[in-house]
Amino acid sequence: MTGYELVVRGGMVAAGGEARRCDVGVRAGRIAAVGEDLSTEGAAVVEADGLLVLPGGVDTHCHIEEPQSDGSIHEESFTTASHSAFAGGTTTLVCFTPQFKGGGILAQHRANRERAARGMIDHGFHQVITDPTPAVMEAELPQVVADGVGSLKAFLTYDPLHLTDAEFLQVLLAARRHGLMVHVHCENHDAIRWRQQALLAAGMTAPKYHAWARPPVVEREATHRAIALAELVDQPIQVFHVSCAEVAEEIARAQARGLKVWGETCPQYLVLTAEDMDRPGFEGAKFICSPAPRQAADHEGTWEMLRRGTLSVVSSDHCGFSFGGDRGKARNGRDASFDAIPNGIPGLAARLPVLFSEGVSKGRIDLARFVSLTATEPARIAGLAHRKGAIAPGLDADLVLWDPAKEVTITNALMRHAIDYTPYEGLAVKGWPVITIARGEVAMREGAMLARPGSGRWLPRDTGAVARPLGHLPDGFEAAPPLP
Amino acid sequence: MTGYELVVRGGMVAAGGEARRCDVGVRAGRIAAVGEDLSTEGAAVVEADGLLVLPGGVDTHCHIEEPQSDGSIHEESFTTASHSAFAGGTTTLVCFTPQFKGGGILAQHRANRERAARGMIDHGFHQVITDPTPAVMEAELPQVVADGVGSLKAFLTYDPLHLTDAEFLQVLLAARRHGLMVHVHCENHDAIRWRQQALLAAGMTAPKYHAWARPPVVEREATHRAIALAELVDQPIQVFHVSCAEVAEEIARAQARGLKVWGETCPQYLVLTAEDMDRPGFEGAKFICSPAPRQAADHEGTWEMLRRGTLSVVSSDHCGFSFGGDRGKARNGRDASFDAIPNGIPGLAARLPVLFSEGVSKGRIDLARFVSLTATEPARIAGLAHRKGAIAPGLDADLVLWDPAKEVTITNALMRHAIDYTPYEGLAVKGWPVITIARGEVAMREGAMLARPGSGRWLPRDTGAVARPLGHLPDGFEAAPPLP
Amino acid sequence: MTGYELVVRGGMVAAGGEARRCDVGVRAGRIAAVGEDLSTEGAAVVEADGLLVLPGGVDTHCHIEEPQSDGSIHEESFTTASHSAFAGGTTTLVCFTPQFKGGGILAQHRANRERAARGMIDHGFHQVITDPTPAVMEAELPQVVADGVGSLKAFLTYDPLHLTDAEFLQVLLAARRHGLMVHVHCENHDAIRWRQQALLAAGMTAPKYHAWARPPVVEREATHRAIALAELVDQPIQVFHVSCAEVAEEIARAQARGLKVWGETCPQYLVLTAEDMDRPGFEGAKFICSPAPRQAADHEGTWEMLRRGTLSVVSSDHCGFSFGGDRGKARNGRDASFDAIPNGIPGLAARLPVLFSEGVSKGRIDLARFVSLTATEPARIAGLAHRKGAIAPGLDADLVLWDPAKEVTITNALMRHAIDYTPYEGLAVKGWPVITIARGEVAMREGAMLARPGSGRWLPRDTGAVARPLGHLPDGFEAAPPLP
Amino acid sequence: MTGYELVVRGGMVAAGGEARRCDVGVRAGRIAAVGEDLSTEGAAVVEADGLLVLPGGVDTHCHIEEPQSDGSIHEESFTTASHSAFAGGTTTLVCFTPQFKGGGILAQHRANRERAARGMIDHGFHQVITDPTPAVMEAELPQVVADGVGSLKAFLTYDPLHLTDAEFLQVLLAARRHGLMVHVHCENHDAIRWRQQALLAAGMTAPKYHAWARPPVVEREATHRAIALAELVDQPIQVFHVSCAEVAEEIARAQARGLKVWGETCPQYLVLTAEDMDRPGFEGAKFICSPAPRQAADHEGTWEMLRRGTLSVVSSDHCGFSFGGDRGKARNGRDASFDAIPNGIPGLAARLPVLFSEGVSKGRIDLARFVSLTATEPARIAGLAHRKGAIAPGLDADLVLWDPAKEVTITNALMRHAIDYTPYEGLAVKGWPVITIARGEVAMREGAMLARPGSGRWLPRDTGAVARPLGHLPDGFEAAPPLP
Repeated sequence: MTGYELVVRGGMVAAGGEARRCDVGVRAGRIAAVGEDLSTEGAAVVEADGLLVLPGGVDTHCHIEEPQSDGSIHEESFTTASHSAFAGGTTTLVCFTPQFKGGGILAQHRANRERAARGMIDHGFHQVITDPTPAVMEAELPQVVADGVGSLKAFLTYDPLHLTDAEFLQVLLAARRHGLMVHVHCENHDAIRWRQQALLAAGMTAPKYHAWARPPVVEREATHRAIALAELVDQPIQVFHVSCAEVAEEIARAQARGLKVWGETCPQYLVLTAEDMDRPGFEGAKFICSPAPRQAADHEGTWEMLRRGTLSVVSSDHCGFSFGGDRGKARNGRDASFDAIPNGIPGLAARLPVLFSEGVSKGRIDLARFVSLTATEPARIAGLAHRKGAIAPGLDADLVLWDPAKEVTITNALMRHAIDYTPYEGLAVKGWPVITIARGEVAMREGAMLARPGSGRWLPRDTGAVARPLGHLPDGFEAAPPLP
Repeated sequence: MTGYELVVRGGMVAAGGEARRCDVGVRAGRIAAVGEDLSTEGAAVVEADGLLVLPGGVDTHCHIEEPQSDGSIHEESFTTASHSAFAGGTTTLVCFTPQFKGGGILAQHRANRERAARGMIDHGFHQVITDPTPAVMEAELPQVVADGVGSLKAFLTYDPLHLTDAEFLQVLLAARRHGLMVHVHCENHDAIRWRQQALLAAGMTAPKYHAWARPPVVEREATHRAIALAELVDQPIQVFHVSCAEVAEEIARAQARGLKVWGETCPQYLVLTAEDMDRPGFEGAKFICSPAPRQAADHEGTWEMLRRGTLSVVSSDHCGFSFGGDRGKARNGRDASFDAIPNGIPGLAARLPVLFSEGVSKGRIDLARFVSLTATEPARIAGLAHRKGAIAPGLDADLVLWDPAKEVTITNALMRHAIDYTPYEGLAVKGWPVITIARGEVAMREGAMLARPGSGRWLPRDTGAVARPLGHLPDGFEAAPPLP
Repeated sequence: MTGYELVVRGGMVAAGGEARRCDVGVRAGRIAAVGEDLSTEGAAVVEADGLLVLPGGVDTHCHIEEPQSDGSIHEESFTTASHSAFAGGTTTLVCFTPQFKGGGILAQHRANRERAARGMIDHGFHQVITDPTPAVMEAELPQVVADGVGSLKAFLTYDPLHLTDAEFLQVLLAARRHGLMVHVHCENHDAIRWRQQALLAAGMTAPKYHAWARPPVVEREATHRAIALAELVDQPIQVFHVSCAEVAEEIARAQARGLKVWGETCPQYLVLTAEDMDRPGFEGAKFICSPAPRQAADHEGTWEMLRRGTLSVVSSDHCGFSFGGDRGKARNGRDASFDAIPNGIPGLAARLPVLFSEGVSKGRIDLARFVSLTATEPARIAGLAHRKGAIAPGLDADLVLWDPAKEVTITNALMRHAIDYTPYEGLAVKGWPVITIARGEVAMREGAMLARPGSGRWLPRDTGAVARPLGHLPDGFEAAPPLP
Repeated sequence: MTGYELVVRGGMVAAGGEARRCDVGVRAGRIAAVGEDLSTEGAAVVEADGLLVLPGGVDTHCHIEEPQSDGSIHEESFTTASHSAFAGGTTTLVCFTPQFKGGGILAQHRANRERAARGMIDHGFHQVITDPTPAVMEAELPQVVADGVGSLKAFLTYDPLHLTDAEFLQVLLAARRHGLMVHVHCENHDAIRWRQQALLAAGMTAPKYHAWARPPVVEREATHRAIALAELVDQPIQVFHVSCAEVAEEIARAQARGLKVWGETCPQYLVLTAEDMDRPGFEGAKFICSPAPRQAADHEGTWEMLRRGTLSVVSSDHCGFSFGGDRGKARNGRDASFDAIPNGIPGLAARLPVLFSEGVSKGRIDLARFVSLTATEPARIAGLAHRKGAIAPGLDADLVLWDPAKEVTITNALMRHAIDYTPYEGLAVKGWPVITIARGEVAMREGAMLARPGSGRWLPRDTGAVARPLGHLPDGFEAAPPLP
């Protein structure tokens, strides 16, 4: 009954997908009302005339300040990541807590929470499982879940991260017991290893051979396998970073069978290509990520899968390694071969502008789909629909004021991240975030960063909401003990 | 900045699909705000505690007070239909204006508007085309479109309504020129005619043979054909009353090719069966509609198609003929055979309760999907998204307060229609509309009808929004003259 | 126990598909033995060393000396067609008996038999039905069938040949009663008519617009419809001249459902393209046939459908109209527009060399598939497996001695037909028929024609063998009277 | 030019699939001629009037006298297997040479050849690879291939037989280098292990739980994976013992992509069911094999896959373990649980009668398909088409005279194997082999065994014919060294 602290006035508000002109009233960091002619008495006012008002982006796939097995840590800190996210219109991150082979997860989780608490952006974690020992799964995992973690991440490739099928089944079963989502990196480890070794033996070591080492069939195989094992266990999963329609087709088939399987893709699979890895002067290393970017001819198929809903989330898979520097892509790579170049590209700030420009401005997707792909659906799948991902009363007042007509050429400086390059350098986009509001506070205005360090909040997840099994597992398996 | 005239307070409001507890403020018949603790100063208050607050149902497929070629008129008037709709939580209808072979459409349209204006419910019309003469398509249709009609309806079966392919192409082309949606009844006319005559010749005349005369393959054929012709012309279409997954599969294939093809189904294809037409004592006639209800084993497949989004709208196809009476189903049928029984069943009031109970209460679909199927998506496809189908500021204040826990056994009296039976008699449902608000006025409260006659409004449609072609038609065809 | 009259010695004999070195012994015009070191005592000997010995080609789709509705007759006579067939390694034809709207079939059949009896090649007829009146279907058809006709041909396009769905159903039902195969030309008549008129109205009259007037979707539509109606009636059908994989996919789907549906294609859909119709100087008219040749990019898909067996027959659809002359393609076309150019191209002699060269020599299909596509399967589907299509004791001694290494550039003179051009002029092929033996007599040797006029035989068909229904039609329909 | 040593006279000879009445003349153990009225001068004559004359069955999947890792050996010897095969109309076997983890293959191969040489039936071996060490793959495999082995067998499940993906890739690569076919047992090892342990932990130990431990999804997963890895390497494979249409669908998809992938099934997947494993008194153990028999409702789908050609071979997977006795199914199983029961059922003699009766006599497949499934296609895929699988001059005179009308009730005595039971006990079949001729000698007549011990011959295989890669592997991989 009291007034609002902040009113965003006169924008085209994407509440429920369709944008309609009205105001958004904020109270105590939450959206109090969406309405016409809201009272601004006693309120700060942000004028949004001529702008879209969108829910703040939710990026459920980014690697921030993650410790590596060699004792180093990702150079992108939660502070720089907060800046980069706000610069790109994103207000929520779900990042990763690592597990090292033989190691536990609880201490890692706590350390990760401490690091993240220094940043300015709201955050949750996926718990990576690389070694599902009883000690971890039975003693530590329940504590991590109790603290608000709502999802597990499994790798089917990468040394030493990848799981055997038996280990992956354990991850699925643990997730089932706790109501967690399972996210999977799907590529066949042994197949890639063979290709890599064959290429190296043949002296084919340039960055472009990264793509040769992991063609789509390798990703399709692991995708079908992950889905089949999840189907066996009756556990919902999301397939991460689907790179092309051939792979997405496996998800479509599973969905048509009624399974709870979702697919995510990333801007790199809509814009970048395998040819980028062949740029002169070792520049190709800047585009190395896994799965590898595919052919330009594959892009339209991936857009179609976004329109059909087979792929329902677009994340960044931000995983920054600078090009230069001691641990940079260039250093590791130049001395050796494509397999020594760190995998991953930065994309936190570029995600929304690239998707908006290539998608909405170019007529491939409509605004409602954009909002769904970048905010509503990632929040829902992450068990964060009670706080994030939409503009509705009761949700956190995370808003991005978006100028659909603004034309910008992407430069690394605009990305505001700690990495020394962006793979989208020079890309002209139409549509740009001009103001980012996080829980009712203006965090970014025209590129200026206004949020206080330490203002980011931990987001406990609503486990079991989306990740609830279908109930297909026969009696006798529900209570079955895990494999020894 | 002024206060609200009406506040719906404390319900679980399905704004944007997900239901969250808040208030809805109404001003001048439109939703002014959705928010927490809205000011009730000077406002009427409707308490919604413990209830869902949903957008009023939008039923884009119902036959009301339609003149028939024999000079009679549907016994369901706009007045009785308004009562029935409000009783079932529906606040918007899109009905049909007929065209008789050889006749025009303009006078029919005007007469229809007059009839509808006497009712209490907001309404639009689909213009049926049975005879696309130049006089009609070039002289009259533009006037009808200018008056706000946004869609054409084509029948591929029924004497004398059905169109040849050449005529259907003309309908598609005319729709393309005017930005209209085309809705199609897809069954193969000649095939049904053969089956009917063969059955009659074999003395197989009972109501149940209605289903024998039109098996799914007959519907699948016409569905593929309608889609192919629409694909040729590059014109968006919606396939009406899809009866089973075998037919929906054709729509799914078209959608996977990126075409603008949508599918609708009706509660009769989710609940009723071909066996119902075999009930003793001519009762089977009460279930005769086209396409015919399928087997019980088909129902789950149809639900799956709703979950996948292949089918995106659930309408009633309300088309009431009383069982008794001069023109009733019983009279025509008893003296003759299944082909003489009027086709169509009443379903205006039953649509939402049956879908909610079988869908949401039984866990087959979630609430967001229910709202999308019954309000948001039908409004969007009808070009009414600017006024109807969602709870958002600026839209008409059409709201239904729904008790998800209320258990009711359906009786004909509860349906409040003019027809003397309901095919859902005796069906126990969980979930029931307790208050219906139309443009800010309580139109139904606990079964009591409160709306003033004549309060229903004509709804001009936003043509060209959804029905915009993809731009696939090559040069040379765009401007091509219609067939002589 | 007696000796052989003819022994073909030492060739690689494709008996059962695989070619193995042995002899073929002939007695009384039939194959008496296939064996090693057959006795040549008293026998004429044809040396086949280094050659393939294949079953004579069976071309079940060619228009020869057919009367047209304007009183003219196809210029390709049974005499010239015999020469052309032998020149290309073909020894059996199934041609067409026309029906004109309002006319009967019996007299046409008898006249056709007389004409054909003057030729040198064994032959059967498909009975075209364009007007299924009771007089024709009940009085005349049984007599035609009794004389050995085993199949009906239905056109879903072309004026005045095309059937309505009701008429097509009658054709299917009549075929069912008599155990006949139904062959269908599948293109949507009304759709093509619209496209033609639109193109003409836009002044787009050049030959290349023939393809614009009938894109693949028009063929796919009619294919799905023909299959659906055949499925309804439970009648086997063969879809004629499938032009691309998009259309063949409908056949594959039907086959996967267990239906008796077969597909045929022709060399023109494997080698020619829509661009050929755009050749300068009205030359494009030489490539006009229906369905129209597709894009070069479509060819590989069609080959794949041949390998998969979705398409099981390759015919010529020989339908010759000279380019020059009074009724030639050029004359009709130059004065008018693409729709006035007679449809059809000559291909009798080119069929086997083009398919062998592009298929076997280029490694797209193996020899066993070649034999199946060109002889065994067309004979089987035509109900001629008891006499034609394979090299086995008891079958007619129709053999072609094929030099797989011979390289030839196709010229019209080599085609030996009555038409003044070949669309394959200048095509280099590898593999060529050097001797053709028809019922034990050498009919062609190195291009020299040796068969006696009048030596061709009428081939009564084994009705009901392949064309037997599955038994899916419910009681009550089997005996149903035809539509009035 | 000389006479025949044996003439099979007057049967319906299935040469080229279709059966036609003629004689088969034999000289030096090979078919010399197929013809009418062959000279019987100086020849033994076998009268075949009223009988079908089929190519002798080729069973490319049977476990005979195989050493086990525990030092024991399969109780079915090559002598008893010869009897059983002849009794059932089979004249060629391809069996297995084992490799034990850590062990070699060359000595095993030689020992296997010695054992097999004591039998009466022609034979080849698949070389099982369980441990692809360099010593085996580089030193021994070439010698084994040089001796005539043409195929490798890989297990993706079973301890200790199963291969990792890396090991399976090595097998594929080795096969590619030598032109070998790869046959794969496709079930996911880890998934089955989890299910087994869960079932045992829940006390669910009865034989029927064998099927619970390995549902179709487990088989589908491994099938897609095996195909994907073979696609990556560009190596042809055959998927063994496909149990149902859900699995076969993966093969159909691969074939539709143009890949060289074939599927085999066995009579147990057409006749037996998971319910059989629930027979009282531990009888269920008699039906335990892997993959497990599926539901009765799955059978028709598998038949359809045979008709479509997705599955092109029907083998026995004969793997006999008696029910009683020291190592019998009963003994191991009764004391323990389903996982301790030896996997495998006998089926050498039953294969053809069961398939003929359920397939041909019941109208599910035609005779040409039967011959293809049981003789022509297995011989072709095994690289034996130059000697086996058809009735044609030059091929071995392996013939079975089959009485299509003979009705027999299957008993274990009729099976003539060493095993003490048959899972088909009591099954009534129509159609039975009355005489089996092996390389021109009558080996079985009316159940009497006539072949001399030691008369079976080793069959070197035509490597590289069918197993030739498509040529899809890019440069750089062809010559790549194997993984360390």
